[in-house]
Amino acid sequence: MFEKPVQRLIDELTRLPGIGRKSAQRLAFHLLNVDEGDARSLAQAIVDLREQTSFCTRCHNVTSGVECSICLDPRRDHAMVCVVERAQDIAVIERTREFHGRYHVLGGALSPIDGVGPAQLRIDELRSRIGAEPITELIIATNPTIEGDTTAMYLARRFKPLGVAVTRPASGLPVGGDMDYADEITLGRALTGRRDL
Amino acid sequence: MFEKPVQRLIDELTRLPGIGRKSAQRLAFHLLNVDEGDARSLAQAIVDLREQTSFCTRCHNVTSGVECSICLDPRRDHAMVCVVERAQDIAVIERTREFHGRYHVLGGALSPIDGVGPAQLRIDELRSRIGAEPITELIIATNPTIEGDTTAMYLARRFKPLGVAVTRPASGLPVGGDMDYADEITLGRALTGRRDL
Repeated sequence: MFEKPVQRLIDELTRLPGIGRKSAQRLAFHLLNVDEGDARSLAQAIVDLREQTSFCTRCHNVTSGVECSICLDPRRDHAMVCVVERAQDIAVIERTREFHGRYHVLGGALSPIDGVGPAQLRIDELRSRIGAEPITELIIATNPTIEGDTTAMYLARRFKPLGVAVTRPASGLPVGGDMDYADEITLGRALTGRRDL
Repeated sequence: MFEKPVQRLIDELTRLPGIGRKSAQRLAFHLLNVDEGDARSLAQAIVDLREQTSFCTRCHNVTSGVECSICLDPRRDHAMVCVVERAQDIAVIERTREFHGRYHVLGGALSPIDGVGPAQLRIDELRSRIGAEPITELIIATNPTIEGDTTAMYLARRFKPLGVAVTRPASGLPVGGDMDYADEITLGRALTGRRDL
């Protein structure tokens, strides 16, 4: 139906997460109609992304060098490590300005049904870091999902015996939210995790 | 917050239609994690799109040559021209198999509020085609929106005096909708049931 180069771009775009055939078509025709410089600039940004970045050899955060800027920052607390599923989760936590330690990117969460076991995640690398760095606490900031919870439990069972505190951010009501809209499970956790005022 | 090449790609992606900051982040990190070949393949598809395609000199459809395959097809009825807002609308109409003439891509619809007047659309080009080709009917398949209807009325007023029938696809198209999302059957019925303006 479409000219070959158009169809090829639509096919490529459809492979991206959250982009269906319709959105891909819309994007392809948008790129046909914008200034050629803008289209090239997007293509170049994709190439540069891969050529100019890699993953931190310590925590697997995105970096332009060997280690990431957080791992190299001497002001960060080397005793605390926040464990996240994906590199993009680091930015979310950084924005809170509540955490001043380093990170460790697992590369996902345990999910036997999807074939993701401990060997598929960077858990051995975390084990090595506990041996090599002065780590006293792991904050397991995996997603509050079944997979994220399972991963947190697994890490606690595996690393608490090494004398490391293993904690998890509290689950509860979102600040500024409405009680009325809280689901039962979240509200249940908020109640069991209640704090003295 | 993000490494520069990551932020640059996020910025580029955010400029695309229907892609917000959150989706852009998701896409950028997806492209960081896929095979490098897949990322390059997408970048190349964008470059190829612009290098290997241009617009038909007659109707402004997308083409790999000078004129598009529809304009060059001798089996198409040269007396009928279907006028559409954008090149991607042609594929939607072709899918109905109800139309066997040629096309004319206006490049949008009249919208004084957005500064789009007759001079901003390819209306003079359409006028020239009416002089040079054996055109007896224009089917104005602009979107069933205020802008699309206004454009249709304008074209009828301008080209009917030249002895050309100016019609509009009729029932079936949901008012206020977008041509792009019409299903084949509805659009097919709309074409066969077109009304004189």
